[in-house]
Amino acid sequence: MAKIPHSIQVLIDALADLPSLGPRQASRLAFYLAENGYQKAENLLLALQSLQGNIRACANCYFIHENTDGLCDICRDKSRKQNIIMIVEKETDLISLEQAKNYNGIYLVLGQIPKTGALKDWQKNRIESLKRKIEKELNGKAEEIILGISPTSIGDWNASLLKHELENYSKKITRLGRGLPTGGEIEFADDQTLSGALEGRS
Amino acid sequence: MAKIPHSIQVLIDALADLPSLGPRQASRLAFYLAENGYQKAENLLLALQSLQGNIRACANCYFIHENTDGLCDICRDKSRKQNIIMIVEKETDLISLEQAKNYNGIYLVLGQIPKTGALKDWQKNRIESLKRKIEKELNGKAEEIILGISPTSIGDWNASLLKHELENYSKKITRLGRGLPTGGEIEFADDQTLSGALEGRS
Repeated sequence: MAKIPHSIQVLIDALADLPSLGPRQASRLAFYLAENGYQKAENLLLALQSLQGNIRACANCYFIHENTDGLCDICRDKSRKQNIIMIVEKETDLISLEQAKNYNGIYLVLGQIPKTGALKDWQKNRIESLKRKIEKELNGKAEEIILGISPTSIGDWNASLLKHELENYSKKITRLGRGLPTGGEIEFADDQTLSGALEGRS
Repeated sequence: MAKIPHSIQVLIDALADLPSLGPRQASRLAFYLAENGYQKAENLLLALQSLQGNIRACANCYFIHENTDGLCDICRDKSRKQNIIMIVEKETDLISLEQAKNYNGIYLVLGQIPKTGALKDWQKNRIESLKRKIEKELNGKAEEIILGISPTSIGDWNASLLKHELENYSKKITRLGRGLPTGGEIEFADDQTLSGALEGRS
């Protein structure tokens, strides 16, 4: 009875399968692309095509890049400290941190920590490859490993596991500071944020 | 300083250009498609490709379809009353109404009414083509035209314009009933809904 054309339904399914897109939004987008958005559908198509083959993960930090050799721009940058490594979850976290222009070390992109709390095998492999790199290139000890992991309960749990696992591989292991966000008002901050801000006072 | 690879940026732009997708969601999706979602990017690519050429607007009601002749399934269905026409804005509205399985006439898809409130020229042309169809096929008068337009201020305004414009082309012009949604509680309904429910009591 519902007369959704087949190729629209296929597009709805492909869109709804993406994270953070609900079925209703997917269906609106699909009809939009089919009916009014020919040029936009074409742009999206071309963008997806150009992705294939152009994109690879950095051999060092796993951030995706388009360089022809194996390293991303950050890892190739000789002015950045190779012995200070920040572990982040998402590429978008890395980009936000880069935009803050206050960090001059390198990264390891761990991938988003699953909701179950346990790292996947490919994520554990990234930690292993970090250890190998520290052994080979930094004589077994990094200067500092920063756990740039969001302060959620799952994030905190994994940060403590990683701290334990990496403690022999770095002189210092730190986490990003906790406290009031700039512009945030004390009145509206939750208890955790406030006690973090107290502990991190300076 | 922000090291977003070019082809990711192109994909972010193409996604952010779609309605209801914000820049942050677009950027998360693009990185997801580039890094973890190869198969999903491929599915989306194939779905967009198959859209091109397969999809056309119904010559009668403008609902998009994949039939080789000019008419959609609804307009081809001889069991549906061709002299009762519901004007809807979006394809997704039509599908919701079809899923309710309580309507046996045909449609005219008008396209979403712009936020400015004024119909675009292509939308006015659809109303004109409806008039021509009524003149040719229904001897100048439809049995009923239902204005299936959402009861927002812009929707109400356009419904009253359309009612005026089409009054000589149909014996009856109606709007969808207003009242409490099924499952809705009186306590939480707003004034407009309640007064609509009172007027539409039966």
